[in-house]
Amino acid sequence: MRKFVVGIMGPGDYADIKTIAKAHQLGQLVAQEHWVVLSGGRDSGVMKAVNEGAKQIEGSITVGILPSKESKVSPDVDIVIVTDMHNARNNINVLSSDVVVTCGTGGAGTVSEIALALKAEKTIIMLDADSMMQKFFAQLGGDKVIAVDSPEDVIVTIKRIWPRESNSQV
Amino acid sequence: MRKFVVGIMGPGDYADIKTIAKAHQLGQLVAQEHWVVLSGGRDSGVMKAVNEGAKQIEGSITVGILPSKESKVSPDVDIVIVTDMHNARNNINVLSSDVVVTCGTGGAGTVSEIALALKAEKTIIMLDADSMMQKFFAQLGGDKVIAVDSPEDVIVTIKRIWPRESNSQV
Amino acid sequence: MRKFVVGIMGPGDYADIKTIAKAHQLGQLVAQEHWVVLSGGRDSGVMKAVNEGAKQIEGSITVGILPSKESKVSPDVDIVIVTDMHNARNNINVLSSDVVVTCGTGGAGTVSEIALALKAEKTIIMLDADSMMQKFFAQLGGDKVIAVDSPEDVIVTIKRIWPRESNSQV
Amino acid sequence: MRKFVVGIMGPGDYADIKTIAKAHQLGQLVAQEHWVVLSGGRDSGVMKAVNEGAKQIEGSITVGILPSKESKVSPDVDIVIVTDMHNARNNINVLSSDVVVTCGTGGAGTVSEIALALKAEKTIIMLDADSMMQKFFAQLGGDKVIAVDSPEDVIVTIKRIWPRESNSQV
Repeated sequence: MRKFVVGIMGPGDYADIKTIAKAHQLGQLVAQEHWVVLSGGRDSGVMKAVNEGAKQIEGSITVGILPSKESKVSPDVDIVIVTDMHNARNNINVLSSDVVVTCGTGGAGTVSEIALALKAEKTIIMLDADSMMQKFFAQLGGDKVIAVDSPEDVIVTIKRIWPRESNSQV
Repeated sequence: MRKFVVGIMGPGDYADIKTIAKAHQLGQLVAQEHWVVLSGGRDSGVMKAVNEGAKQIEGSITVGILPSKESKVSPDVDIVIVTDMHNARNNINVLSSDVVVTCGTGGAGTVSEIALALKAEKTIIMLDADSMMQKFFAQLGGDKVIAVDSPEDVIVTIKRIWPRESNSQV
Repeated sequence: MRKFVVGIMGPGDYADIKTIAKAHQLGQLVAQEHWVVLSGGRDSGVMKAVNEGAKQIEGSITVGILPSKESKVSPDVDIVIVTDMHNARNNINVLSSDVVVTCGTGGAGTVSEIALALKAEKTIIMLDADSMMQKFFAQLGGDKVIAVDSPEDVIVTIKRIWPRESNSQV
Repeated sequence: MRKFVVGIMGPGDYADIKTIAKAHQLGQLVAQEHWVVLSGGRDSGVMKAVNEGAKQIEGSITVGILPSKESKVSPDVDIVIVTDMHNARNNINVLSSDVVVTCGTGGAGTVSEIALALKAEKTIIMLDADSMMQKFFAQLGGDKVIAVDSPEDVIVTIKRIWPRESNSQV
């Protein structure tokens, strides 16, 4: 029963337009596979875009893990988890994701999530990270960190690594 | 888009057979209303029973907020949120619920959830609490705490208090 | 090296004058024993009073576990632990205390702390709880919950239960 | 009253001998200034070494923020804060520190702490980080991240940035 969960992390208020577009497409593609889209849930940047993309697909499920009771929620989140523990909730984001995907070159929040994901021995797929970020995490995480260029490659990579778990017959 | 979430709390390993039966029925009834069933997610007692009940209904969604990476998950949980923060996760359970329902006379875990729900100004519906628990929380919570006798009354009470939010046209 | 820590919990903004006075005395007495005074750290009610009392004793150490970065800290707290996880920090308060003492009849926050302390198998000493609170937690916690009437009795009870750990030769 | 707190982070089980030696010296120097030494509290690597160093100074205070109830505590920790929230406690480490100092080239845990410290707008002093780590965080954090080579330089830097707060007359 347990659904396959793809956690998508990335910049909020400072996301650029290219990152937003890729996040939107990624949300769609993940939802088409019947995977759950999990994000930080706020109505901003990558979080907002992945949920928007996902909800264009019928039957999609979006989960948002909110930092605060006061956070403005993305209107495309179906299930809102309110932690009220601010950035400590980043650890819940990664622990609850079967795979962690970052979109764009994140700021400190995204970097904390990648690092916490490595502590938790999760695989991280970095979509469109800049070369510094790729080099740094390649050194830190070895083959637990995979850099890709397109949303389609995220999907292909997930199916390659988790052929069974990601196979949701609905 | 945001779905109406009913958090159902209650004893785990020490739940009696009557409480289990009512929890199972409550899970079914909540799912029939197209509300999300949120629980502590473990494969035990009230948590296990509400998820089992809910998943007998087509299209139901069950969310489990796990205390630990090592917790055994109820097989009827669709979306697993892994907190790895043990009993501190009880606060997330209540903050993420539009209404908190307790089933049976809970132990210390359930009592902590009711108290945290009162701190968060949530309404708590107590199904089948013993008279001591009812009296204590009536004094502590006033009309934020409502005692009922049957799973059906839980549903009626929710519809009365949240006529709009609980009206999920699917 | 590890110091003996007494966690003192109780009402904040709604504490009455008698409870404040007893909390102040309790802070003094605990500090005289060279035990660490741990509290929720805010500049209000029992938290404020126990820290004030403790800091009248030379060499005392006071620790405050703050709910939020924005919380106003009691000026008598030596060491401020900032959790920014709001009421979920109540679990840290009790886990970090060798013994949990409540002062006065607490509200929902204090009740959550007693319940979380019971989950963690801590002993709770309730100073001046009303009869309803005493009865409820006697039923829930059995002999893990001890009701006393005076700050002096708190000290006597601690020395009786932890003769070795509480014996700080400084 | 509130004491100045220096949070010292760094590798645990994989710390090399040079890092251990510098951590030990750093603990001593921080304690000599009458600042509180805050660490992750475990009996391993940098955490163990800073506490050992600090406790060679009379009147020093060491605080350890433990990830788990089961963690083995460094014997030189005076005040043990038990979070039982595993790596999410890294956020508490940084929020509770007036300044965050990393010692050696950390693993994923230390990286998460630097990133969370940047989110919290803390200043981070990196002692003996490798060049990749320096470059990465210089790009991410700008002048919030300061790289130094010796424990003495950590002290000088702290006194320069916080001339007033760090001036503990005891």
